[in-house]
Amino acid sequence: MNGLMMQQPLLISSLLVHAQRHHADQEVVSRRVEGDIHRTTYRELAARSRRMANALARLGVKPGERVATLAWNGYRHMELYYAVSGSGAVLHTLNPRLHPDHVVYLADHAGDQVLFFDMTFLPLIEAIAGRVKTIKTFVAMTDRAHMPKDSTLANLLCFEDLIDANDDQFEWPSFDENQASSLCYTSGTTGNPKGVLYSHRSTVLHTFAIALPDALNCSARDTILPVVPMFHVNAWGLPYAACMTGAKLVFPGPGLDGKSLYELFETERVTLSAGVPTVWQGLLGYVEANELKFSTMRRTVIGGSACPPAMMKAFQERYDVQVIHAWGMTEMSPVGTAAILKGKHVALSSEQRMAVQATQGRAVYGVDMKIVGENGDALPWDGRQSGELLVRGPWIIDEYFKGEGGNPLVNGWFPTGDVATIDADGYMHITDRSKDVIKSGGEWIGSIDLENIAMANPKVAMAACIAARHAKWDERPLLIVVRKPGVELTRDEMLAFFEGRIAKWWTPDDVVFVDAIPLGATGKMLKNRLREQYGDALLEKN
Amino acid sequence: MNGLMMQQPLLISSLLVHAQRHHADQEVVSRRVEGDIHRTTYRELAARSRRMANALARLGVKPGERVATLAWNGYRHMELYYAVSGSGAVLHTLNPRLHPDHVVYLADHAGDQVLFFDMTFLPLIEAIAGRVKTIKTFVAMTDRAHMPKDSTLANLLCFEDLIDANDDQFEWPSFDENQASSLCYTSGTTGNPKGVLYSHRSTVLHTFAIALPDALNCSARDTILPVVPMFHVNAWGLPYAACMTGAKLVFPGPGLDGKSLYELFETERVTLSAGVPTVWQGLLGYVEANELKFSTMRRTVIGGSACPPAMMKAFQERYDVQVIHAWGMTEMSPVGTAAILKGKHVALSSEQRMAVQATQGRAVYGVDMKIVGENGDALPWDGRQSGELLVRGPWIIDEYFKGEGGNPLVNGWFPTGDVATIDADGYMHITDRSKDVIKSGGEWIGSIDLENIAMANPKVAMAACIAARHAKWDERPLLIVVRKPGVELTRDEMLAFFEGRIAKWWTPDDVVFVDAIPLGATGKMLKNRLREQYGDALLEKN
Repeated sequence: MNGLMMQQPLLISSLLVHAQRHHADQEVVSRRVEGDIHRTTYRELAARSRRMANALARLGVKPGERVATLAWNGYRHMELYYAVSGSGAVLHTLNPRLHPDHVVYLADHAGDQVLFFDMTFLPLIEAIAGRVKTIKTFVAMTDRAHMPKDSTLANLLCFEDLIDANDDQFEWPSFDENQASSLCYTSGTTGNPKGVLYSHRSTVLHTFAIALPDALNCSARDTILPVVPMFHVNAWGLPYAACMTGAKLVFPGPGLDGKSLYELFETERVTLSAGVPTVWQGLLGYVEANELKFSTMRRTVIGGSACPPAMMKAFQERYDVQVIHAWGMTEMSPVGTAAILKGKHVALSSEQRMAVQATQGRAVYGVDMKIVGENGDALPWDGRQSGELLVRGPWIIDEYFKGEGGNPLVNGWFPTGDVATIDADGYMHITDRSKDVIKSGGEWIGSIDLENIAMANPKVAMAACIAARHAKWDERPLLIVVRKPGVELTRDEMLAFFEGRIAKWWTPDDVVFVDAIPLGATGKMLKNRLREQYGDALLEKN
Repeated sequence: MNGLMMQQPLLISSLLVHAQRHHADQEVVSRRVEGDIHRTTYRELAARSRRMANALARLGVKPGERVATLAWNGYRHMELYYAVSGSGAVLHTLNPRLHPDHVVYLADHAGDQVLFFDMTFLPLIEAIAGRVKTIKTFVAMTDRAHMPKDSTLANLLCFEDLIDANDDQFEWPSFDENQASSLCYTSGTTGNPKGVLYSHRSTVLHTFAIALPDALNCSARDTILPVVPMFHVNAWGLPYAACMTGAKLVFPGPGLDGKSLYELFETERVTLSAGVPTVWQGLLGYVEANELKFSTMRRTVIGGSACPPAMMKAFQERYDVQVIHAWGMTEMSPVGTAAILKGKHVALSSEQRMAVQATQGRAVYGVDMKIVGENGDALPWDGRQSGELLVRGPWIIDEYFKGEGGNPLVNGWFPTGDVATIDADGYMHITDRSKDVIKSGGEWIGSIDLENIAMANPKVAMAACIAARHAKWDERPLLIVVRKPGVELTRDEMLAFFEGRIAKWWTPDDVVFVDAIPLGATGKMLKNRLREQYGDALLEKN
């Protein structure tokens, strides 16, 4: 027997309609590629999204077809989020930091019909335009005055021309909530990138979950600045959560340096931000060097890779900004966990609370987790035993786009590729990527813990720890270090820093000093590249 | 083209599983009918719910069949919430304040198979047992020691016996999320009560919405005491939201007087409560009389009927308890709106903020509202024009149980029976029930505004304003007043109190002083009864 409540599909367009009806005057502020600060409201943004939906129809975009973007965080990108998905097409957010060959591969694999791009990326677009197979139309996300004077592109349209030429009368269509809404590719550190195809249902449910008080805690009193790019797992869902909750949105455009971000935080009175540790490194550096403080920012979400404890301490103790340590994956929409305190933690000391916050956190409702041993059996949640982390839930991948890679699931669970512990309170702590774990004489050593210790040394700018082959122990930890500019730091001094901070047998066998550690397109350290280069460094020594 | 995310149904059992896995040690505290305070945890509550699910199967309860409760707020009632719905049956929460004839009517109409009851209601059960047609089994919600010695009931089982006799190994079944989960009947001030049949999907989506920061704002740092009964629209969803968010729960059992509630608020360090204005009247009276304050309670949800401004002022200004004025209906699961401030309101004066909070609030995401004039056309959101309020959304009724009353919708919208304004920020303000509105010479006068003014007079304990027939104006407002004990208040003094507080022509024509105003089973004033008695009072005077 079914319940007798209204059947209404969970559609992305309903988020925008909610914002437009209930928060019409709320602001959306963008630093534009053109250089200026642009201000609009949800009322206007919704009207322009409807105009763009009409434009897409006139460009011949059909439901289910892919429309790509190569763009910074800004209001025009947000309009495409809603115009494309809302009208039943699929938004494919390309990562402009990828090599042009990869962009071509992804556009072809996705079968993109139209590509919208910010003017920053004109050279990239001109380089790939003759190579992509399915893209019929290119649209520059700017106005007539800023259009390129002599582009090599044949089918180049102007975003604002499309807006002007189309009516804002458009009824968002209703359809099955399981219909595809958007497509993001994994960064693919090994093999070809694989596509994750989100649905309207998965997106709306994920939006509910991340807006909850014990996740990102979004309200109509917040001003949210997503530093995390809109081409990186939908900016962690913030463009959707802002509409659901009526928060003010501030988009940084291409200005991701410490100074540009800080200025925007202050002038727009930002209360909540989100980004990867490497971006915050730049921001904190700027704030420290200029002896500034944050007037309104009180919470920042840090994810993408683990937040170094030193960064967490700086934010919380020096700047009174609460760090929300979160974890997720492209395959998870992306949010899975957030390290938010429980009632029992409130009375703890600052140090004890930091220990809880340093974990990747507890699962948001909707996400189920388990850790398993090498035989696949579930391990206890005792905070000590570590195993491979598996997840499931209504916003977690079932299979990749076009069946790439076959069935990714293990008995209905998605293996994350992370190795983690979970404690009795449900706080999950990633000790390693399963491919980065160091197997020393049959025992596992977590590379992330070692990196965090190295990073806590004030002379260290960045550190990576890799599994180097070893004649006796199979693998032993090798530390790769970038020194801070102008400081001296010797191998022995670095290794001595581990004393008392970790079990003696976990101490790295050696240190290699380098000028830079290679980073991937989403700012993560490319440890496979380091292993290729330094994987035999300990063998050579023996 | 469909998205490629996991298909997982939204099931009520997943809320309990989440609480059990991620908040196993979190407490659930109940004042029992037996007189003592009982403490358990989500771990234990989940295990007992699984035992009870096994017990229900052994009692022969099939998916879709109705299981009724006549019970206070307590852990056993919560276990039934999850055991019944989670195993695929339908929980029918009967209101024990109804007349026995009504209870018989509802049990028969629902086709209840089993009835669980708190010992308080044994006399009621004994009175109806011979009359109900479908109930095969009665279960007393107590332990063996407290079972009645010589009951007239033939098939009487003991709750704790069922728990003891059944295993806690039980796999919650997976099924279509649209399957029915629970059944509540409207209070039915006119005609027979009608059943609202919720689904798992509608319940889980509603739970997400009410837990959001701009609704009830529930987190794992909260201790929630639902005063609103679990037999009244699922205690507004709090037994579900507590599991979703890991909040501590405190159940008041039968102790709803000011003293019992206050003691529980203090000893259990309650942070969030919820109930109807009449209950808070009792609590505030007790706190005032004993010159107490609230040590931990910081937010209280007031709904069911409009919160008198004087009560809001007392809570906020005297006791530092934020009032969350909320509005909903049995047909809406129930929450539709909450009067939570936006960013633009934060800097306003306390008085200006109170004016926003005095509205019924803005729609939570998922609920769509509109107001229409007498011809059915939508009216503007200008905060001035009032019309009939209609709503729609995935947790709003489509039709009543067994098709009772035919199709309740108007072009896909549910007419609430309320008359309201909506302002440009989306704040909805109920000016009247459409059946209570006073039509004076073709113009509408809102009875609620008049009642609120009367209630602001310190000599008034309770006030109702009704439409009394009038020879010249068709209808004119008549005020019915209960004086506070021991005070003097004349008709002229009462009417003079309206001067300057309202347009002169809105002033009631007369005042009737009474000892008590009749209240319905959910604590609402029965204005239809007052109209029967006093509807001609103004005619007689002319």
